[in-house]
Amino acid sequence: MLGRLYKKQNCSAARALEVVGERWSLLILRDALFRGTTRFSDFQRTLGVAPNVLAKRLEGFIAAGILEAGQSQHSEHREYFLTKKGRDLKTVVIALTAWGDRWAAPHGPPVVFKHESCGGHVEQQLQCTTCGETPILTDVVARATNPCPAKRESRTLPATRRREKMEPRSV
Amino acid sequence: MLGRLYKKQNCSAARALEVVGERWSLLILRDALFRGTTRFSDFQRTLGVAPNVLAKRLEGFIAAGILEAGQSQHSEHREYFLTKKGRDLKTVVIALTAWGDRWAAPHGPPVVFKHESCGGHVEQQLQCTTCGETPILTDVVARATNPCPAKRESRTLPATRRREKMEPRSV
Repeated sequence: MLGRLYKKQNCSAARALEVVGERWSLLILRDALFRGTTRFSDFQRTLGVAPNVLAKRLEGFIAAGILEAGQSQHSEHREYFLTKKGRDLKTVVIALTAWGDRWAAPHGPPVVFKHESCGGHVEQQLQCTTCGETPILTDVVARATNPCPAKRESRTLPATRRREKMEPRSV
Repeated sequence: MLGRLYKKQNCSAARALEVVGERWSLLILRDALFRGTTRFSDFQRTLGVAPNVLAKRLEGFIAAGILEAGQSQHSEHREYFLTKKGRDLKTVVIALTAWGDRWAAPHGPPVVFKHESCGGHVEQQLQCTTCGETPILTDVVARATNPCPAKRESRTLPATRRREKMEPRSV
């Protein structure tokens, strides 16, 4: 776990940000996930990140179980390989990229995600497991799984009695 | 645009992180998105973030077009409302939360996402728009949309000739 804690937050997004929310973290992982980068020197070259910052992030990811250190078969270089926990972050990078494509890529997406087996385009979608629909964003709400204890009330998301105020317009 | 730039990165994830990648940014937006929080004092109370940091983030979001300032009908308080660009970040918060639920919630997810219309559970899925499948993560690859110019080669994701190295195991 890295040093950037959100202690008061009983929230999985906060817990995720404690692990991957520091400067350069998600770009280092993007390179590991989608470029297959494993070596310190390759991360450093493509990212241009300061070596001390890169070293700190990589060691933090090892401590958090996102990367594991190994050694190349062909050299004595230390390499960094994604664990299952690390590979599972692909969905986070894809979500960030999709938002950036929609709102911060005036010349179009520099990269697209493909289904390697068939060559098709891969998109991330929300789906309701009950009705099967793809809900519009305004129709997706958060519900605390254990909203009863008064002690926890201020730390969990309340029923959305304030949703109209929250989402004055449809997306 | 906030001051945390990744200038050398021709990547929509990097552009997204320039806007939402600073400490507290995504938790402030989570509260706006899923709690309907609009007031400075409410953000401050539920997050426990330092007022100067909160003020800086909120003004940054206004500058980036993610929030817009307004005034309550019932008081003179300044309020912060999500724009369409801001509301679209729901998918990023959901992706982060889902990862945190899987890897950093030993007591189970504190919050679940629901389809308000039918009460069903909402999940985020990858889908191939060609074959309709939900691809496994190892089968999702990144392809540069314009990989030709030599000048851009080092800044865009290359063809995944190193993919086997990158993803030694299936997810």
